[in-house]
Amino acid sequence: MSTTTQNSEKTRPTDNLMDGTGLARRLVQQTTEAAADLLRRTGTAPCLATVLVGEDPASVTYVRMKQNRCAGAGIRSRHVALPASVSTAELVDAVAVLSADPDVHGILLQHPVGPHIDERAAFEAIAPEKDVDGVTMHSFAAMGFGLPGFVSCTPGGIMRLLDAYDVDLAGKHAVVVGRSAILGKPVGMLLLGQDATVTYCHSRTSDLPALVREADVVVAAVGRPRLIAGTDVKPGAVVVDAGYNPGNVGDVDFETARERASLITPVPGGVGPMTIAVLLEQTVTAATRQLGLPVGG
Amino acid sequence: MSTTTQNSEKTRPTDNLMDGTGLARRLVQQTTEAAADLLRRTGTAPCLATVLVGEDPASVTYVRMKQNRCAGAGIRSRHVALPASVSTAELVDAVAVLSADPDVHGILLQHPVGPHIDERAAFEAIAPEKDVDGVTMHSFAAMGFGLPGFVSCTPGGIMRLLDAYDVDLAGKHAVVVGRSAILGKPVGMLLLGQDATVTYCHSRTSDLPALVREADVVVAAVGRPRLIAGTDVKPGAVVVDAGYNPGNVGDVDFETARERASLITPVPGGVGPMTIAVLLEQTVTAATRQLGLPVGG
Repeated sequence: MSTTTQNSEKTRPTDNLMDGTGLARRLVQQTTEAAADLLRRTGTAPCLATVLVGEDPASVTYVRMKQNRCAGAGIRSRHVALPASVSTAELVDAVAVLSADPDVHGILLQHPVGPHIDERAAFEAIAPEKDVDGVTMHSFAAMGFGLPGFVSCTPGGIMRLLDAYDVDLAGKHAVVVGRSAILGKPVGMLLLGQDATVTYCHSRTSDLPALVREADVVVAAVGRPRLIAGTDVKPGAVVVDAGYNPGNVGDVDFETARERASLITPVPGGVGPMTIAVLLEQTVTAATRQLGLPVGG
Repeated sequence: MSTTTQNSEKTRPTDNLMDGTGLARRLVQQTTEAAADLLRRTGTAPCLATVLVGEDPASVTYVRMKQNRCAGAGIRSRHVALPASVSTAELVDAVAVLSADPDVHGILLQHPVGPHIDERAAFEAIAPEKDVDGVTMHSFAAMGFGLPGFVSCTPGGIMRLLDAYDVDLAGKHAVVVGRSAILGKPVGMLLLGQDATVTYCHSRTSDLPALVREADVVVAAVGRPRLIAGTDVKPGAVVVDAGYNPGNVGDVDFETARERASLITPVPGGVGPMTIAVLLEQTVTAATRQLGLPVGG
């Protein structure tokens, strides 16, 4: 490769950015149309139940934002607010009531729910067909086995982005940094389902930079600012940054990484907007199925 | 390292072998004692239900072997034989009956069950607390999330072997070759749960030898004779061969690999005996729990 080519690559300002904001907008628009169509055909608008434990300001803000986005897409919200002192049994009961309620099509339990609560038990009270946030064991196994089910929203958003930019994953080495139950682990399973060779890295990984240097696709999902040095990105690699840290900083050193990556998500405006878009889409899908209509029909 | 040392390493014939036969024998002995103890305390012997569809000779042999091993450990068997023509709904019903039967503590559905049957639906009819073969989505997710549950038997046997030989997995790079739902995928999750850095390789992986050369731990679980060249094993690596191919040949070129590995499983006598031992142990554990006694108490 000539110096000229390298320079021209280095100076292109935006043409290797994956535009999550734009893709999410289109997905939300399709979802809004699907919700309207469902209402027209069945007389019922999709309904997402949100469950909030306590009054943590960040959680309150997140839930309100999700409700507002639902409203914008023609999705009704049902809100269940529980005191911070709620017991696991009470929370499980509240979620189970929503699971059994035919007027509720999707359930989102805002987490974390507090250290005294068995969060897993609460998640498992969500009926799989209403698990539009993709947090249940059933949904995880479905992602692992390539079976029908709802995906965790951020992993689902990442896969949508890769697909929208025609990233062929088959045989590629995808390095996932992070192993959380709702992000790292499921996105690795989804990448594996697309025939990528998948490496899970985490806090105990002994030489993270060496593994990143091998990656054709890097998915950073750990929440540590600039953990991944841009100079470790292999030239031509695809970089997906699902980290979101104070000061709009991702898990990847963006400015350096973008000079080497063939495609890279900005922070913000990359993965973030896709998460809520997938939540809305899955809520309408859940409603469509529960109302007995074919999805996409 | 001196030539003398190398020679002495090369000529040691068996001291780097992981003795699955011996470890399995001890595990079965403990399980037999636990089953006898349970019978003494509750008047009930553990019971494993085996479900066989059709009369495939290999499947018939496997089921009979498992029943014999159960009998040897003081575990009762209940056998359900269904014709090859059974429908998915009929098979699901038969499994559901066993799931609801308090006299049955564990359920093993011999697979494959035939191409016309939805095997996943049949597996999912197994109650999680009776899934002693570790095949349900619930069990997979439990392995993925590090939650209580039954493990898939071969992955569980592999982890027992690694533990018995004091292999510290934290920070080690474990390369899993194969991604089946009952072997590759769950063993990767269990290794990740022990803080290994885990890479899943498979048929679409573009440069398997290069990844094997990096591995501190190799788990071969694909069923292709000598797919992994011994010369690709990193000196000092731990090699677990879960492959079992005609002619007692594993997935690893054993003779060459054993000269380089710090520990290696033979085929046969490595992983194989552990699988049935874990099945028996989990059956007694399931019975103990269902009879209301503390496990290991």
